[in-house]
Amino acid sequence: MFIVMEPNAEEGDLARVEERIRSLGLTPHRIPGGYRTAIAVTGNVDPVPKERFDGLANVSEIISVTRPYKRASRESRAKDTTIEVKGRKIGGSRFCLIGGPCAVEDADQIRKTAEAVKAAGGLFLRGGAVKPRSSPYTFQGLGEEGYRLLHEAGRDLGLVTVSEVVDAETVDQARDYIDILQVGSRNMQNYSLLKIVGSQNKPILLKRGASATLEEFLLSAEHIMAAGNGQIVLCERGIRTFSDFQRCTFDVSVIPEIKSRSHLPIIADPSHAAGKRSMIRPLARAAISAGADGIMVEMHVRPQEALSDGCQSLHPEELTDLFEEMGRLAPFFHKKVERE
Amino acid sequence: MFIVMEPNAEEGDLARVEERIRSLGLTPHRIPGGYRTAIAVTGNVDPVPKERFDGLANVSEIISVTRPYKRASRESRAKDTTIEVKGRKIGGSRFCLIGGPCAVEDADQIRKTAEAVKAAGGLFLRGGAVKPRSSPYTFQGLGEEGYRLLHEAGRDLGLVTVSEVVDAETVDQARDYIDILQVGSRNMQNYSLLKIVGSQNKPILLKRGASATLEEFLLSAEHIMAAGNGQIVLCERGIRTFSDFQRCTFDVSVIPEIKSRSHLPIIADPSHAAGKRSMIRPLARAAISAGADGIMVEMHVRPQEALSDGCQSLHPEELTDLFEEMGRLAPFFHKKVERE
Amino acid sequence: MFIVMEPNAEEGDLARVEERIRSLGLTPHRIPGGYRTAIAVTGNVDPVPKERFDGLANVSEIISVTRPYKRASRESRAKDTTIEVKGRKIGGSRFCLIGGPCAVEDADQIRKTAEAVKAAGGLFLRGGAVKPRSSPYTFQGLGEEGYRLLHEAGRDLGLVTVSEVVDAETVDQARDYIDILQVGSRNMQNYSLLKIVGSQNKPILLKRGASATLEEFLLSAEHIMAAGNGQIVLCERGIRTFSDFQRCTFDVSVIPEIKSRSHLPIIADPSHAAGKRSMIRPLARAAISAGADGIMVEMHVRPQEALSDGCQSLHPEELTDLFEEMGRLAPFFHKKVERE
Amino acid sequence: MFIVMEPNAEEGDLARVEERIRSLGLTPHRIPGGYRTAIAVTGNVDPVPKERFDGLANVSEIISVTRPYKRASRESRAKDTTIEVKGRKIGGSRFCLIGGPCAVEDADQIRKTAEAVKAAGGLFLRGGAVKPRSSPYTFQGLGEEGYRLLHEAGRDLGLVTVSEVVDAETVDQARDYIDILQVGSRNMQNYSLLKIVGSQNKPILLKRGASATLEEFLLSAEHIMAAGNGQIVLCERGIRTFSDFQRCTFDVSVIPEIKSRSHLPIIADPSHAAGKRSMIRPLARAAISAGADGIMVEMHVRPQEALSDGCQSLHPEELTDLFEEMGRLAPFFHKKVERE
Repeated sequence: MFIVMEPNAEEGDLARVEERIRSLGLTPHRIPGGYRTAIAVTGNVDPVPKERFDGLANVSEIISVTRPYKRASRESRAKDTTIEVKGRKIGGSRFCLIGGPCAVEDADQIRKTAEAVKAAGGLFLRGGAVKPRSSPYTFQGLGEEGYRLLHEAGRDLGLVTVSEVVDAETVDQARDYIDILQVGSRNMQNYSLLKIVGSQNKPILLKRGASATLEEFLLSAEHIMAAGNGQIVLCERGIRTFSDFQRCTFDVSVIPEIKSRSHLPIIADPSHAAGKRSMIRPLARAAISAGADGIMVEMHVRPQEALSDGCQSLHPEELTDLFEEMGRLAPFFHKKVERE
Repeated sequence: MFIVMEPNAEEGDLARVEERIRSLGLTPHRIPGGYRTAIAVTGNVDPVPKERFDGLANVSEIISVTRPYKRASRESRAKDTTIEVKGRKIGGSRFCLIGGPCAVEDADQIRKTAEAVKAAGGLFLRGGAVKPRSSPYTFQGLGEEGYRLLHEAGRDLGLVTVSEVVDAETVDQARDYIDILQVGSRNMQNYSLLKIVGSQNKPILLKRGASATLEEFLLSAEHIMAAGNGQIVLCERGIRTFSDFQRCTFDVSVIPEIKSRSHLPIIADPSHAAGKRSMIRPLARAAISAGADGIMVEMHVRPQEALSDGCQSLHPEELTDLFEEMGRLAPFFHKKVERE
Repeated sequence: MFIVMEPNAEEGDLARVEERIRSLGLTPHRIPGGYRTAIAVTGNVDPVPKERFDGLANVSEIISVTRPYKRASRESRAKDTTIEVKGRKIGGSRFCLIGGPCAVEDADQIRKTAEAVKAAGGLFLRGGAVKPRSSPYTFQGLGEEGYRLLHEAGRDLGLVTVSEVVDAETVDQARDYIDILQVGSRNMQNYSLLKIVGSQNKPILLKRGASATLEEFLLSAEHIMAAGNGQIVLCERGIRTFSDFQRCTFDVSVIPEIKSRSHLPIIADPSHAAGKRSMIRPLARAAISAGADGIMVEMHVRPQEALSDGCQSLHPEELTDLFEEMGRLAPFFHKKVERE
Repeated sequence: MFIVMEPNAEEGDLARVEERIRSLGLTPHRIPGGYRTAIAVTGNVDPVPKERFDGLANVSEIISVTRPYKRASRESRAKDTTIEVKGRKIGGSRFCLIGGPCAVEDADQIRKTAEAVKAAGGLFLRGGAVKPRSSPYTFQGLGEEGYRLLHEAGRDLGLVTVSEVVDAETVDQARDYIDILQVGSRNMQNYSLLKIVGSQNKPILLKRGASATLEEFLLSAEHIMAAGNGQIVLCERGIRTFSDFQRCTFDVSVIPEIKSRSHLPIIADPSHAAGKRSMIRPLARAAISAGADGIMVEMHVRPQEALSDGCQSLHPEELTDLFEEMGRLAPFFHKKVERE
């Protein structure tokens, strides 16, 4: 940590900062500069809260260099983490393909979708049972029944299931049915929920919030890990910017940066990033080429009748084409798509 | 709703869109343009989901004009909503002053703070019992004990209490202690929580998410109202932008815009927007002058010892100055600060 | 400057960084931390280019603390700069009122507008002769004729004139006619233009770019000052964010921050920030209350016939009301509106 | 165009809007909705300025559907535009490789760099002679001498040259030396410069501004085309967002969207987007896979001695690896890297 003083700081100001540092059991080091003096702090293992230096005169800036996430960091674990569930792997050399509808609508829809995902070569089936929607007047999902239907479709076709949970109640409902619990982007900083999923013995798919910095994203993973669950798959799904031609701006750069800073796997959700069907393939290609560990895409057997997000759902034959292409591209990027 | 066709759309494409509109029980109106034809849709009361037009060839854009929030809109209620709690009012001609620490730390701290808020002329006492923090390793609040301490301080000094809740459990804990339940910015789209607070018979202070559009903000209020609770105070606390000299960019324009679109009161939280003490007064002034119904500011009896957010907390005497200034400014903007 | 090393940096890596520092004539100071070592650099007066440390192994981060602007900084001049032109002042204790049309359209329009500005109590007349417009197919301004007409209107009514310049040619055209040359937000980083206006003996009104950080904004002022012209008035006019209910997000916080970091005056342009008439008054109030040195607003004698920006132009009677209100508010914020 | 009325608009309000539409020689069509009435406008070929409807009571929103760019649009030309210069092609089935230093520093540096670019398989040599830099105190480029040195290196090695121009004077200096004139991102909306390069008989490389929407980007191309020059290569180089781990957020989605809306070729500049060397390869891969027509990357023979942007410059052997990889990836995306 560095404490940068104002140009007009006097000896007394410097001395008071140094005294405060010593009172915290740490060591100050004075670094005189051209216009301003800085005081380096050593002896701490964890970040020092900035407010400890509050109220001191002529302090200009406080700069932290210790990274606040530990368990999620590459520094704590050099090797890539691989998540394993029902014999399927996410991370490492695998590139995983997750497909399914935005929302589970009925038994027939999810069964047909599961068949299409399997036919396309996917091993993971997604589908929402609770749908966080901006408007309270649109379809909010089937609830527990949705988890059950997704479970049955997954079980019958041998697919690993992924579905979103939003609170203690839905985690209870999903527990016996769902293989991978998803925390949605709107709940990325719902620490109450992160704590709950952190106590589950199941992999967690954690989506990046639309305005989350990379550090906040990894700190949310850290919340889950600190609560006891290290089986985390990160997911980039677009960020909020001024750019208005698509729903969110797909932040492809976050993929290599996460790979450099963390050992956790990261996949991409091109469907929610773009919000339109024609953009899914280019974004999926960008994701795999930037080093992602998989993609999760929305597919609907009849997009125009979807109760939510139809515009961004692929048709079954588009899913087949996309998954097939990912399989061909993967080896170029030292990845392998696992098949049945 | 308008459906704009591509320039190369042919008669058959237009006919298929019109057929789809009619199949939904609505009426199409063809509007030929210079390069492109649009088809207007009439007959709907609520917004029509865009995916209903999915899969149709040569549709370029779909433009909704019906606003998706109703109960929160000015159109549903022309008169300003005033919230009343323990004889104190928020909204209408009143300008409310809320002060208190980021977090309740112990009985002595919250008691001294309450005295300072009261001495400064505030009628509302804030204080966090659960603190959503990016890092799992920093102080997370006292929990139920924090609600109790805040309640006692408020009771003894005759102040209305405001504290954040984050899930069903904390709502249960806060129910008997706290007068106004706060939903924090990170939970603005936690619809599970919005539903729970929507079933309480208490006012809700709803903070804008750091990347929430105005429409999403009002839709979150709509979630609470649709669940049965119309006592909502909105709160602007800064948005996330590229600008890096302060924590968030205080979006002062949202205040008059909310006033024009909604009947709900809106206050400002300059402490969280700026993240530093020196910025609080200019932002509070900007808020009152742009039409806000109140301010909520952080204050600590000893900021440099605060367990959280000390850097942005006012000293007691600064709070007194600020509240006194707000009292003098209010009449200029047709507002009145209520005093004991 | 601090050079933060990776956790796995070894003695040899540290030594090579220190050697590089010494080779630049500077002094390294090693600061061991919990996980990582940092090396402080002293001896420099100006910022050291980061690329000087390029190619060295296990360097994690390079942090500059020397601010790159000098002449524009408060550190170089503690006292507020006041600009004086034709006996009128901008900055210090004055709050200046600038009004006029987006574009000069003809002699009658600008003359009537000037009369309205004067009647409203304004002492400064703005009007565009060259209009940077996104589309090449809309009205681009009258060019030199526009400067002449603005000059004549200003001369006859005793108003100081402000008009935008965009290149060497327009600076030549404007030189004999215009009192204050404006650099528009799209040209804030047009360094060729900054150099030209830096060689003029006239005040420059420098508008913030829509995505300029505070540092970039002050560095653009620094470009003008480094070229010899210290008569600069800064102008906040809204930044580009995700928020979509107004044209730009008016960044009210930048006003007090500029006041703290720089001695230059700063005014606000609420018309361009908001892009709609009803938002001008609340933003003007926010600007004056946050410490601005003036406002510049668009006004048109017949907004609905304006050749550009009519939607955001005030009617003459609205301008009168606004200027009158600013006059009443100013003393509250230790400012004074100068009158004839 | 659609004019949406407020819910409380009365017959007289509607009639006045319709009258205004007719006064412009256009035709109104009334579209009654659930809560609000809209009035569609037909008969126009170009967009109608919104201010034409200014001052009318109870108008809520005005929605344009006519796209403001024409010459740059796919609608005006269905076939991809291919730029040809000295027998080299950009666009269509070609994937072009542009390399070179941020700034031309001296004859030896640019010559060695040119040899490295050629050895790596590149056919285009970039290098700055005028460097727009935020700070006036850093290296600003060699000026005319820089263009000459770049020209000589390109001539001797048979490489097409690309260099930035910033005003009339630098266009004059560059004209005889440089094959492709670059307009930098800070000048994307410098319409004076766009007009000048629009009158040149040379290809223009137009970089997207850091906060330019897709529409503004294409409108800047339209400015050049309207001035007579249709030889334009667009270039994505990152946008400004809240995300702080890299210099800019590389907006990979803009590539397929431009391909869908415009016939102009678009390349990517991963060096400026990321601002650090390790990010260049993943972004280059993302660009080619999303459909870009080429990449432009910074390379320096001795990055640690570069006078600007050394941190983001590749070493010669890294350039060779990257270009070689692009050659292998291109056929997968139906592209071909042209070789000597």
